[in-house]
Amino acid sequence: MVVALLTDFGTKDGFVGAMKGVILSINPNVQIVDVSHEVEPFNILEGALLLKAHYRFFPKGTVFVCVVDPGVGSERRPLAVSCGGYFFVGPDNGIFDLALEDLGSEPKAVVIENRKFTLPEISRTFHGRDVFAPVAAHITRGVPVEELGRRVKYEQKLSLPETVREGKVVRGRIIHFDRFGNAITNVPCGNYSHGKVRGEEVKVVPFFQAGEKGKLNLICGSFGFMEIFTPMGSAKDTFGLKLGEEVVLLEA
Amino acid sequence: MVVALLTDFGTKDGFVGAMKGVILSINPNVQIVDVSHEVEPFNILEGALLLKAHYRFFPKGTVFVCVVDPGVGSERRPLAVSCGGYFFVGPDNGIFDLALEDLGSEPKAVVIENRKFTLPEISRTFHGRDVFAPVAAHITRGVPVEELGRRVKYEQKLSLPETVREGKVVRGRIIHFDRFGNAITNVPCGNYSHGKVRGEEVKVVPFFQAGEKGKLNLICGSFGFMEIFTPMGSAKDTFGLKLGEEVVLLEA
Amino acid sequence: MVVALLTDFGTKDGFVGAMKGVILSINPNVQIVDVSHEVEPFNILEGALLLKAHYRFFPKGTVFVCVVDPGVGSERRPLAVSCGGYFFVGPDNGIFDLALEDLGSEPKAVVIENRKFTLPEISRTFHGRDVFAPVAAHITRGVPVEELGRRVKYEQKLSLPETVREGKVVRGRIIHFDRFGNAITNVPCGNYSHGKVRGEEVKVVPFFQAGEKGKLNLICGSFGFMEIFTPMGSAKDTFGLKLGEEVVLLEA
Repeated sequence: MVVALLTDFGTKDGFVGAMKGVILSINPNVQIVDVSHEVEPFNILEGALLLKAHYRFFPKGTVFVCVVDPGVGSERRPLAVSCGGYFFVGPDNGIFDLALEDLGSEPKAVVIENRKFTLPEISRTFHGRDVFAPVAAHITRGVPVEELGRRVKYEQKLSLPETVREGKVVRGRIIHFDRFGNAITNVPCGNYSHGKVRGEEVKVVPFFQAGEKGKLNLICGSFGFMEIFTPMGSAKDTFGLKLGEEVVLLEA
Repeated sequence: MVVALLTDFGTKDGFVGAMKGVILSINPNVQIVDVSHEVEPFNILEGALLLKAHYRFFPKGTVFVCVVDPGVGSERRPLAVSCGGYFFVGPDNGIFDLALEDLGSEPKAVVIENRKFTLPEISRTFHGRDVFAPVAAHITRGVPVEELGRRVKYEQKLSLPETVREGKVVRGRIIHFDRFGNAITNVPCGNYSHGKVRGEEVKVVPFFQAGEKGKLNLICGSFGFMEIFTPMGSAKDTFGLKLGEEVVLLEA
Repeated sequence: MVVALLTDFGTKDGFVGAMKGVILSINPNVQIVDVSHEVEPFNILEGALLLKAHYRFFPKGTVFVCVVDPGVGSERRPLAVSCGGYFFVGPDNGIFDLALEDLGSEPKAVVIENRKFTLPEISRTFHGRDVFAPVAAHITRGVPVEELGRRVKYEQKLSLPETVREGKVVRGRIIHFDRFGNAITNVPCGNYSHGKVRGEEVKVVPFFQAGEKGKLNLICGSFGFMEIFTPMGSAKDTFGLKLGEEVVLLEA
């Protein structure tokens, strides 16, 4: 069984290590995978985007522990969700929404209340360690989601900014920059002839090396969205692209 | 069995990967967990603080390999320590001290001398790979600490700066900044009515979202110490807090 | 079995997590180790250097998935290589070259063509996930390299800049900076009396603490090359050393 971790905890303070210690105390045979711990602090939408981009490459049965949780310790509810053969554990703030939307089937959600499956002592600052990690470990041991707490209706809380379509023109925005400085947009991959960024026409190419050097180019990227890039360079740094900037795609 | 790694090696150069390769060459079935590799270079006290904060969330039997080791290759001694059901392997420079103090029981320490349990060739620059990783792997295979070398008395080398108490007033200092820019102090969690930072009164709140926005607040944090934070922001960056700055807590 | 990952993907976007999900979907019992994901984007030589430095500390049978791949999706060939008991999977751009050279024996190489061992759908932007991860997982399950595709002759594509020897003088260059700011050169460890950096004489010392404080020193480092360092500090930041700068070593 796999537990996959997605947080904004960073890796320098040992918070993720403590979560793994808790998980292995409960199930020593689990495979633990880091999706990312470099979600921008408190940026729930970015966490949701990363989860949506990658969850389907994990084996069925994987438990995703998703902790971007500015409301930790408040009245926000701790959730465990089963959907499409995957499990999702984390705060009720929308972080699962894009993945669940992608999965399409009805999520089965419970509010985690059964103290049998949390650490005995629950702090008000670190539910990743005290609630979500132990619950995930118990799920990998076969504890059904229903036993974790009270069944509730799952309500979607967030979504990506919508694209605007006028005929063959699709208008979207930059929603994320990846490690290479590529700008991921909210425009799903599709059959586009070309695009526009800052009013300038931009080529759509099938792979990175086909891009024009020193210029912006568009490509269907690994997130399943159109990306703006410059070959062997950072589109973000070289062209000063910003989150939220508009991109226009023209269907072929 | 779990081997938990805590170093100042960073993650870019492959040093940690080499340690893991060594461990898995000796025990292919071990679970390896990263506590942190982002300890500030040579900052033994920071490493000791992270170990103290997190060790108890790991299963008994975990071997902590702790390598913040500016003295590598010199006369400083390589140690293996058994205490309270945990094992600690690393240089004799105090990096285990805060965890051992927290454990309370008498540590059993040996100087690692038995070349049967190290790599055949020991460099003078990388004992994490050549000494500590293989020794940890052998411990997870059941090698008793006594067999690793000569028994010595464990001597504590470092401690956190002390807090100063005058009646209901406790004076402490900032000892660490976490990923979020929260300032961890050396004042243990307790029942405080309020605090003072830079002469200004600061509220003590039970969870992050209860804090006053745009202001400094105090909270009992995940390290077990009082932390200075600002909601949804970085206390460090927004207020320019510095390591060593004074904080005052007033008991309720 | 161990799969070791070496990429320039960084850790913030979840790309490495997706690769691990793919691997564990095919072989749930594999040990996955990160060598580094912080190779400078597109810097194949740096990736090759890290692989060379660390591969031999992994158990025989380890599959190294090496993805620094600016040519992804182009005509560049995806390779699987067996050599000296290890396996290497990645693009045909030279990233294995320094390790294979170090291994010395003749590599057996195939171009990955058998779609039975890749993901069903192969993107043109992320062969780490769609080709190299699944192929590596299948190798750990015993699939022979021959079954992955067509046998080809392995051709070396890159090498470190050469050192120049004149009598007892060896001239080399800085090829990498590690996390500590130590400058790794291309001069192999050897018996040197002293060295020169920027025309100034520099001591060769056996371990870091033997170095002169506040000065540059030379040491045989963990990469197997001579390194320029300053004790308890960053040679790179303190002295403004640059990649490619000359270093001179004098044999004893």
